Amino acid sequence: MNDFPSWMAMIQRRTETALERWLPAATTAPARLHAAMRYSALGGGKRMRPLLCHAAGEALGADAQRVDVAACAVELIHAYSLVHDDLPCMDDDVLRRGRPTCHVEYDEATALLVGDALQTLAFQLLAEHAAASSPERQLTMLTLLAQAAGSRGMAGGQAIDLAAVGMALTVEELEFMHIHKTGALIRAAVLLGAHAGDADEKTLQALTHYANRAGLLFQVVDDILDAEGNTVTLGKTAGKDAAQDKPTYVSMLGLARAKELAARLREEAHDALMLCTRDTARLHALTDYIVDRQF
Amino acid sequence: MNDFPSWMAMIQRRTETALERWLPAATTAPARLHAAMRYSALGGGKRMRPLLCHAAGEALGADAQRVDVAACAVELIHAYSLVHDDLPCMDDDVLRRGRPTCHVEYDEATALLVGDALQTLAFQLLAEHAAASSPERQLTMLTLLAQAAGSRGMAGGQAIDLAAVGMALTVEELEFMHIHKTGALIRAAVLLGAHAGDADEKTLQALTHYANRAGLLFQVVDDILDAEGNTVTLGKTAGKDAAQDKPTYVSMLGLARAKELAARLREEAHDALMLCTRDTARLHALTDYIVDRQF
Repeated sequence: MNDFPSWMAMIQRRTETALERWLPAATTAPARLHAAMRYSALGGGKRMRPLLCHAAGEALGADAQRVDVAACAVELIHAYSLVHDDLPCMDDDVLRRGRPTCHVEYDEATALLVGDALQTLAFQLLAEHAAASSPERQLTMLTLLAQAAGSRGMAGGQAIDLAAVGMALTVEELEFMHIHKTGALIRAAVLLGAHAGDADEKTLQALTHYANRAGLLFQVVDDILDAEGNTVTLGKTAGKDAAQDKPTYVSMLGLARAKELAARLREEAHDALMLCTRDTARLHALTDYIVDRQF
Repeated sequence: MNDFPSWMAMIQRRTETALERWLPAATTAPARLHAAMRYSALGGGKRMRPLLCHAAGEALGADAQRVDVAACAVELIHAYSLVHDDLPCMDDDVLRRGRPTCHVEYDEATALLVGDALQTLAFQLLAEHAAASSPERQLTMLTLLAQAAGSRGMAGGQAIDLAAVGMALTVEELEFMHIHKTGALIRAAVLLGAHAGDADEKTLQALTHYANRAGLLFQVVDDILDAEGNTVTLGKTAGKDAAQDKPTYVSMLGLARAKELAARLREEAHDALMLCTRDTARLHALTDYIVDRQF
């Protein structure tokens, strides 16, 4: 399991298995809601956040089953945000992970409830199953996840994103948006994995610094992919940011400078890991994967 | 503070004050989202769930500040559910607590994010602030709140409600819907208040039984109010259930038998409290208030 692609496939598999177990069965009433929740959370996605969570957990020698709890909680928050983000009143998208979006496959009201219930399930998992060596630390993890998901984190980032459509942003404002919209949850993924392994304050700080760079890197690369129009690799409608007149790193910097920025962020992410006194090989490899999967 | 109306006003005031403190300021970025969250969660509502939470807390001699945490967490879940329930793809309602609903006052996308972020904040509060004598018990309270809010609780009840529009339900099916849609969160309000006061298993069981009756009572009375068309007392559009062809206790039993059912549930709720060896005077009074505020 030492080579990175096998490790990655293994984490993706165990995440899928854990989510399958923790999502209510499609036969449990209300069956249509549960089927739609499973449709939205299973069977797709790169599982980037669970990968980051497990990579950080491994660096700390965390018990993998505890990390599963944290990783699935973060992934469920991510899954809920995609379902709501795709709704007609938001991005109005019809394709996600190569399949019809939830409100297209089911209906809008169901998609609304699916997102709501996936968010609830994320917090339920992290409250119900052992994810840390003490209940105090588990409460800290819950707080951290909520901060990352809420109005001063991911949901706030989506509000900023909405307000930015058609606006002339500075690169700083664009960064502020992404730090909230995608960065907060990516940071939570890394930190929750580290907490599951009893990380001390110094390690948490180094990993926070790492996650901030990795989160921005992820977004810059996403913008590049979107601009290059690779719907298949992206698994969602490419070119939609430009079509919706949304500011992106590519629209603001141009493709060449966006790629330079990605290269710099990648280096800074690697550097940040050097300050961590643990074996962060998986996080190094994941950082490269974020960039190299795509261009 | 011994008379019930003063007690009720005091709990409503302290709930408002606590929510004002815990909701992000309307000047914090993203300001529009935070203003809309405050618009939706503050300045209205009967605060029935906080009242139940504090009434149970008092029966157990709980610290009132701990109960505030639990009460506000439950109220934020309730507030989020109203914002989403009012959206065009759900009940499409324009009036709530005597004011324009969130998506009317702001816009649909903002209302979606408001609901999402209010839910997150509920879990954040209950993870971040002391609400129990031990972190283990606080994790139990978080689990309980999540179960009540999720797909096998409130969100599931809304899915059943959606599916029931235009359908011929039995009274049993209608009860099953309400046990989920409103009952689960009312039960959580009572039990979280009790947990904040270190309730033992026997007390929790008696209060569960009480809350199940009180929850149904609340719904039956709501249906009666809706049918009698008192928009002012109700604070939301009256008659909308009938207009939307939704099954209610009144549409299924008729007004007279619905009132008989309410009288029976009220008695059963009082009886359940007798099994509780604590001073449940506030819960008795609240039970009467649920009925008498209205007819």
